[in-house]
Amino acid sequence: MADTAVTAAELTTFFRREFPQSRGIVEKVGGQSATMRLPVGDGDLRPGGTISGPTLMLVADSALYAAILSEIGLVALAVTTNLNINFLRKPAAGKDIIGVCKLIKLGKLLAVGEVAIYSDGDDQPVAHATGTYAIPPQR
Amino acid sequence: MADTAVTAAELTTFFRREFPQSRGIVEKVGGQSATMRLPVGDGDLRPGGTISGPTLMLVADSALYAAILSEIGLVALAVTTNLNINFLRKPAAGKDIIGVCKLIKLGKLLAVGEVAIYSDGDDQPVAHATGTYAIPPQR
Amino acid sequence: MADTAVTAAELTTFFRREFPQSRGIVEKVGGQSATMRLPVGDGDLRPGGTISGPTLMLVADSALYAAILSEIGLVALAVTTNLNINFLRKPAAGKDIIGVCKLIKLGKLLAVGEVAIYSDGDDQPVAHATGTYAIPPQR
Amino acid sequence: MADTAVTAAELTTFFRREFPQSRGIVEKVGGQSATMRLPVGDGDLRPGGTISGPTLMLVADSALYAAILSEIGLVALAVTTNLNINFLRKPAAGKDIIGVCKLIKLGKLLAVGEVAIYSDGDDQPVAHATGTYAIPPQR
Repeated sequence: MADTAVTAAELTTFFRREFPQSRGIVEKVGGQSATMRLPVGDGDLRPGGTISGPTLMLVADSALYAAILSEIGLVALAVTTNLNINFLRKPAAGKDIIGVCKLIKLGKLLAVGEVAIYSDGDDQPVAHATGTYAIPPQR
Repeated sequence: MADTAVTAAELTTFFRREFPQSRGIVEKVGGQSATMRLPVGDGDLRPGGTISGPTLMLVADSALYAAILSEIGLVALAVTTNLNINFLRKPAAGKDIIGVCKLIKLGKLLAVGEVAIYSDGDDQPVAHATGTYAIPPQR
Repeated sequence: MADTAVTAAELTTFFRREFPQSRGIVEKVGGQSATMRLPVGDGDLRPGGTISGPTLMLVADSALYAAILSEIGLVALAVTTNLNINFLRKPAAGKDIIGVCKLIKLGKLLAVGEVAIYSDGDDQPVAHATGTYAIPPQR
Repeated sequence: MADTAVTAAELTTFFRREFPQSRGIVEKVGGQSATMRLPVGDGDLRPGGTISGPTLMLVADSALYAAILSEIGLVALAVTTNLNINFLRKPAAGKDIIGVCKLIKLGKLLAVGEVAIYSDGDDQPVAHATGTYAIPPQR
């Protein structure tokens, strides 16, 4: 799939254009995986000095999308069909959130991946997600 | 549990204070259920005239939290442990998102609920979620 | 879809032929829903007088399959792509397990349903599942 | 936790006594992980030469249970609260099913793990699950 492969920088640009509200940076892609960094803002915080669950879900969904697009090319119409997330530990309020996605299936119609989500600098995941995207048939 | 029951208005105020970034309005609570309305802003949109997945996840998580708090009182420390969401139909871009949660278990340590998520005015759900909250032991 | 609609008895017969190990009885179908009864045997029990989790998962998966086939006809090749189950209460050891499935999406490629699972005679669910089937394109 | 650590052979014996219907063999435990082998029987087959979904769910649940017990000791009362499984590829009918579980959280009340499920001899997973067990407080 060398001719559809996409760089991390191209993916970040694509996310910015297609999802102006996205603040994520695609740090690394390749080998059916992607690493996404989300700089945390005030809107992501919860009382008690932690990060809100929906922010972690956003990172999970984005990292999965980045991993898929890095393989199939910049197809804006791939859509999430299922996301399951387990919240494991309290994320640190002052740290970026890092999502590391590995695809476990890249089929013609469905792609499935798992995402480990970290507070930057900590190697114990704060959350873990699996998700499925439906891929448009005509690619 | 009459003495811990909380009104929809009290819950909306609580959400605003504890989660300044939350824009949801608790419209109705009672009988282990809650209805949450999210006025959709530009930050919730995706290209193609639809609502982003993470916005739907936010509604699912909030509606579940509202249903639980309406039963156990305003306990800020209940935390989501698991959320599973299926995306079913494309939400309309110009409509509020409505989440209707029914608790299916309200235990001492864990509460589980399901949430049907709608575009305002449409009776076919755009997404369906189930989620679990861990309830702090000392309540 | 009147010409593909299938009766509960036809579904039970189909299950018996296609899945000889299945012991479930389709009690009712119609309106994108299905009720499945599983007579519980020794192999389903766990110590402490309860029913094993995998038996409840079997009921969830079967009830969902029955609901889908009752709408699209007896298509042996529909396959589960995702199942999420929450275990809520301890099932009674001596009671049949009843799964009540309602479809929440019946698309061309994917069908999604939710299943409430009961011990026969009790109206509090012992488990709740949501699942997705991929439907073969050429039907 | 050296004094509660349990060997693979002890776990297999425990499974046999506590779950007479279980046919799984715990092949390896250690480091918050466990490998479970399920010899496939006629009751696990589906038409078209494949293995039934509920059999894969049984392997997922058992491998997770084995990984947890290998850390906390032989506590029969730990119970599954949530299991989410994605079915990825068609398993081979004539091969044992292998489940490889890694715990991603081992808390006081909840343990969470992920399980990759394989047909014996194939390195592409046929399914992937994540699950949560509630651990009895008095251990």
